[in-house]
Amino acid sequence: MTAPQAPVAKLGHVAAQTPDLEESIWFFRDVMGFQLTEREGDTAYFRGMRDWEHHTLAITETGGTGVDHIAFRTVSPEALEEIADSLEADGHDVTRVPAGEETGQGEAIRVEKFGHPYEFYYDVDKPDAPEGKRSRLKNRVYGEQHGNRISPRRIDHAHVQDCVSPEHAEWLQEDLGFQVNEQYRTNDGDLWGWWFSVTALPHDFAIHRLEEGEPPMFDHVSYHVDSLQDLWTAADILAEHGIEPDGGPGKHAITRADFLYVSDPASGVTIELFAGPGYLNFEPDWEPIEWTEDEIGGETSHQWIGEGPGWEGLAYPDDE
Amino acid sequence: MTAPQAPVAKLGHVAAQTPDLEESIWFFRDVMGFQLTEREGDTAYFRGMRDWEHHTLAITETGGTGVDHIAFRTVSPEALEEIADSLEADGHDVTRVPAGEETGQGEAIRVEKFGHPYEFYYDVDKPDAPEGKRSRLKNRVYGEQHGNRISPRRIDHAHVQDCVSPEHAEWLQEDLGFQVNEQYRTNDGDLWGWWFSVTALPHDFAIHRLEEGEPPMFDHVSYHVDSLQDLWTAADILAEHGIEPDGGPGKHAITRADFLYVSDPASGVTIELFAGPGYLNFEPDWEPIEWTEDEIGGETSHQWIGEGPGWEGLAYPDDE
Amino acid sequence: MTAPQAPVAKLGHVAAQTPDLEESIWFFRDVMGFQLTEREGDTAYFRGMRDWEHHTLAITETGGTGVDHIAFRTVSPEALEEIADSLEADGHDVTRVPAGEETGQGEAIRVEKFGHPYEFYYDVDKPDAPEGKRSRLKNRVYGEQHGNRISPRRIDHAHVQDCVSPEHAEWLQEDLGFQVNEQYRTNDGDLWGWWFSVTALPHDFAIHRLEEGEPPMFDHVSYHVDSLQDLWTAADILAEHGIEPDGGPGKHAITRADFLYVSDPASGVTIELFAGPGYLNFEPDWEPIEWTEDEIGGETSHQWIGEGPGWEGLAYPDDE
Amino acid sequence: MTAPQAPVAKLGHVAAQTPDLEESIWFFRDVMGFQLTEREGDTAYFRGMRDWEHHTLAITETGGTGVDHIAFRTVSPEALEEIADSLEADGHDVTRVPAGEETGQGEAIRVEKFGHPYEFYYDVDKPDAPEGKRSRLKNRVYGEQHGNRISPRRIDHAHVQDCVSPEHAEWLQEDLGFQVNEQYRTNDGDLWGWWFSVTALPHDFAIHRLEEGEPPMFDHVSYHVDSLQDLWTAADILAEHGIEPDGGPGKHAITRADFLYVSDPASGVTIELFAGPGYLNFEPDWEPIEWTEDEIGGETSHQWIGEGPGWEGLAYPDDE
Repeated sequence: MTAPQAPVAKLGHVAAQTPDLEESIWFFRDVMGFQLTEREGDTAYFRGMRDWEHHTLAITETGGTGVDHIAFRTVSPEALEEIADSLEADGHDVTRVPAGEETGQGEAIRVEKFGHPYEFYYDVDKPDAPEGKRSRLKNRVYGEQHGNRISPRRIDHAHVQDCVSPEHAEWLQEDLGFQVNEQYRTNDGDLWGWWFSVTALPHDFAIHRLEEGEPPMFDHVSYHVDSLQDLWTAADILAEHGIEPDGGPGKHAITRADFLYVSDPASGVTIELFAGPGYLNFEPDWEPIEWTEDEIGGETSHQWIGEGPGWEGLAYPDDE
Repeated sequence: MTAPQAPVAKLGHVAAQTPDLEESIWFFRDVMGFQLTEREGDTAYFRGMRDWEHHTLAITETGGTGVDHIAFRTVSPEALEEIADSLEADGHDVTRVPAGEETGQGEAIRVEKFGHPYEFYYDVDKPDAPEGKRSRLKNRVYGEQHGNRISPRRIDHAHVQDCVSPEHAEWLQEDLGFQVNEQYRTNDGDLWGWWFSVTALPHDFAIHRLEEGEPPMFDHVSYHVDSLQDLWTAADILAEHGIEPDGGPGKHAITRADFLYVSDPASGVTIELFAGPGYLNFEPDWEPIEWTEDEIGGETSHQWIGEGPGWEGLAYPDDE
Repeated sequence: MTAPQAPVAKLGHVAAQTPDLEESIWFFRDVMGFQLTEREGDTAYFRGMRDWEHHTLAITETGGTGVDHIAFRTVSPEALEEIADSLEADGHDVTRVPAGEETGQGEAIRVEKFGHPYEFYYDVDKPDAPEGKRSRLKNRVYGEQHGNRISPRRIDHAHVQDCVSPEHAEWLQEDLGFQVNEQYRTNDGDLWGWWFSVTALPHDFAIHRLEEGEPPMFDHVSYHVDSLQDLWTAADILAEHGIEPDGGPGKHAITRADFLYVSDPASGVTIELFAGPGYLNFEPDWEPIEWTEDEIGGETSHQWIGEGPGWEGLAYPDDE
Repeated sequence: MTAPQAPVAKLGHVAAQTPDLEESIWFFRDVMGFQLTEREGDTAYFRGMRDWEHHTLAITETGGTGVDHIAFRTVSPEALEEIADSLEADGHDVTRVPAGEETGQGEAIRVEKFGHPYEFYYDVDKPDAPEGKRSRLKNRVYGEQHGNRISPRRIDHAHVQDCVSPEHAEWLQEDLGFQVNEQYRTNDGDLWGWWFSVTALPHDFAIHRLEEGEPPMFDHVSYHVDSLQDLWTAADILAEHGIEPDGGPGKHAITRADFLYVSDPASGVTIELFAGPGYLNFEPDWEPIEWTEDEIGGETSHQWIGEGPGWEGLAYPDDE
């Protein structure tokens, strides 16, 4: 009626590489309890227990590691075209991905922007759970009994790093319609962290700034679990497997959510398990909450409870 | 960029009457742990621990009971005017409420629609917690230590009943921009329940249909608590006070959320405590999930775990 | 040093019959997440994730249903002999069960007392979890990852019914060393329920009285789960399987614990999942807490939150 | 009937000094949610929401800090005398404390043993909650609504340090009847930690060994909270108060319980909040679980999840 709607509807999925698909399947499916929707060629497609789309995580065996693309779903096919047009008008090389090239997905576009490999799509399959795994509840995909004691529920957000974050942040807001819910300013006055949202979540996407000259990195993709108890059980089960978390369990000051970070030993992809209510933001007139270095205790740390992760990031694969 | 944004941003608050303000304050503040933002004349203004607006519940002492208005916040001042224009174009009597007439609120409009008293507003105060009660976390209003063991967090949704629900549902979708997330169809083929959302919540508003000739009623307003554990503790504390819940604790099939219903002994206003993740809906192409009478076990019951409430509703005050 | 120690150390296990072992294994192992320690002939031996003994539940396929014995472990081999001597001195027919006749168990004695089939034993195997399922934590048996989302932790208590409860209660206290933690008195002045403990649990064993002439019955055996969240998940998973609980989720007034009752569709054996802290009783001078009918709301109901179970009981098998 | 019962029934309470009683009352009552049973002279007597005895923590304002005594309740008056006799036979100076000298307590004895100030008593008051704070549940002391969002439930265990631990451990087992549930052995073959129990708890008392020549210390007294959620909320509320935990939230390998350590800023007394099921030990033939330095990762660390505390200890007050 009044204001334009953001062209991006939500974070869709992350696609990454692994040197050892079997080990990655062991980690994501057997340890973490992701659902393996489908395995096609060298790619395993995963989703959480409550994700509707065909996949929210795709892992492909290649010689290396790194994230191939971070995909956002648009609000409509038209919004997808408008994003493409806008990128091309800015001189970007926009790659058209035909329907089906990525299993379960319709036509998409890909672009490298500020060094990050982005994908946008609208059409996507929402396959039911396979026979025998369907929930009797129509508003669930898989029956609760088909998850293990971790079993992430749904994709929540992704987090990247680069040294051109202010421009990156501007693009996310102006061209993609993201709102800044929270931000972090260092003592020298520079913004150093942005938590962006295009939904009611405290963030769907975040950028953490790097020093000048450092290459852009992928930090993590986050999945929501149902309760703090589940997050804690996850920490327990990881300990049983001898897998050490990258950080947590703890509770963030920024976003106010409970967290645990853990990486796939094969691909190095870091999953942040996110629990607890955090907050939902329905305010039409939100002003970004700004945190200073003094308030939050150091550039990269924003923990309210417990130890946070180091911010090492995962380098993107070389494209030669 | 493409599709128009819904003019309604969120459920704002519910304003109701009580024959005994002291007893209602005892129930809402002392038992339930709401924050009493302000008491002004015969009205007590309450909010949850994480509500940003001045109030999400207003209780006024009058000779009687009933809900005065159910208020939605619009996405902008312009959206407010457009709603007013549209209502007037349809021949409705739209009342202008000057800024400040409702404490903490700017200009608003009120209209009776399908027998329900609706209010729309955009401007609203977002007062900080009083000195000494502020959280050290900037993304929280009150410090956690200033709540009791129930202390609802934020307003979640409201639920009404009437015998003209199909028309009512159509208006909510076409004029206000709500989406139907779930609906219920009886064995004779009629739709009998609608769960509407204009945010990512499973619903911000719901209608339950009544038999022809029954007067429109207010059913309940819901508040979110942080965890199932908190919901359970609420049931325990209510038992200590000798207050019997109207239903629950249980878990809904529709919306998939954990619930407890309890009514203020003085005003009769029913609060549904809502916990657990339920689900968040970010899909731009959502098709309403439809439940049949056979699947869900009777017209008014949609419990997956535990006993649900009866649907008695609260009559609106007579306006003479 | 001073007072004599009770001869009974703990509730050991319950052994019951089923008409369909495969279905009972499906229910106990696949749905409920019990560990199947061993299957030997027509008997499946189960235990919880944290039970040390070879089994805490044994299910044998026969033509019928019913509980074969309720077994208590004694504090020592001598205590076992003293119980045998005392029973024989009272004219009871004490059956000696040779070591190994019940898999994993040493010498035991069995006796029918007040119509209930009791077993006492001291020697018992405490097998490790099988290779690959062992916890890395030495004070756990199975790794957390080898349980499903219900997976009871340890046997908690058993509950029986009969019409000679006062004499039964006296024997449990005087000969076996149980203490009455709580009791229930009807309005006509009769004791009608007893909650007995020989450990720190609110009860290891309970009797609910029946009307004169009714046959003795087995009511349920209870297992502890880690949290209310796990109890709730259990209710959810049972709903996915289309299995309706016999009662709960709820919270008892007596014992103060959270509960869910559910029965194996094949054997009819009722499991009460028990969660939450309830209370632990370390007092050396405990006086039984007595509840009256007025306080607790009816002969068989002692629910503080939620709906309790009916008390139907499982008839013991005919011994011909 | 057979084996002698241990003379000690349970850990009773800890009495400590503070330089500032008002600040200690603020910490224990207002922040932590302990119940203040009574204030008498310079002493404040506290207990948890479910503690039956008059107090489980006594804080007295003096010029200094330190623990005055660690008190165990005996199983009977006779057991108390036998402990006194045995200590005197060993040449110890046993102080008789007349009934009432410690408010709410009958006759007691005190002795310094291995440098630790121990008290033993049997007679003790179990006062009801004051009018208006009583629970309607007869097996609870205070109504749930009279606690804040931390409110520890009951005293759990205490932990001390000294350099003569092997002799100390032997005395606890042989004279007081404690059982060693778990122990820790360093790589050079010495036992360095003991977790003792005289109840079903994983431990009622523990000793951590110090290097030769270090003075005996009091480490902490632990209180149980109902759930991990409550422990987490405690961490959150402490953060709101700007109070940094000494360790945690985390989960111990030894005892398997969830923990948070926090110290009263005035008295320095460290409280360990203990949550989760840990384990209950009902085995009559328990063999101590022994952990090696390699298994557990360093002398003083036995964390399975999260960061543990440093082991600084609180020096006992000089007695001159």
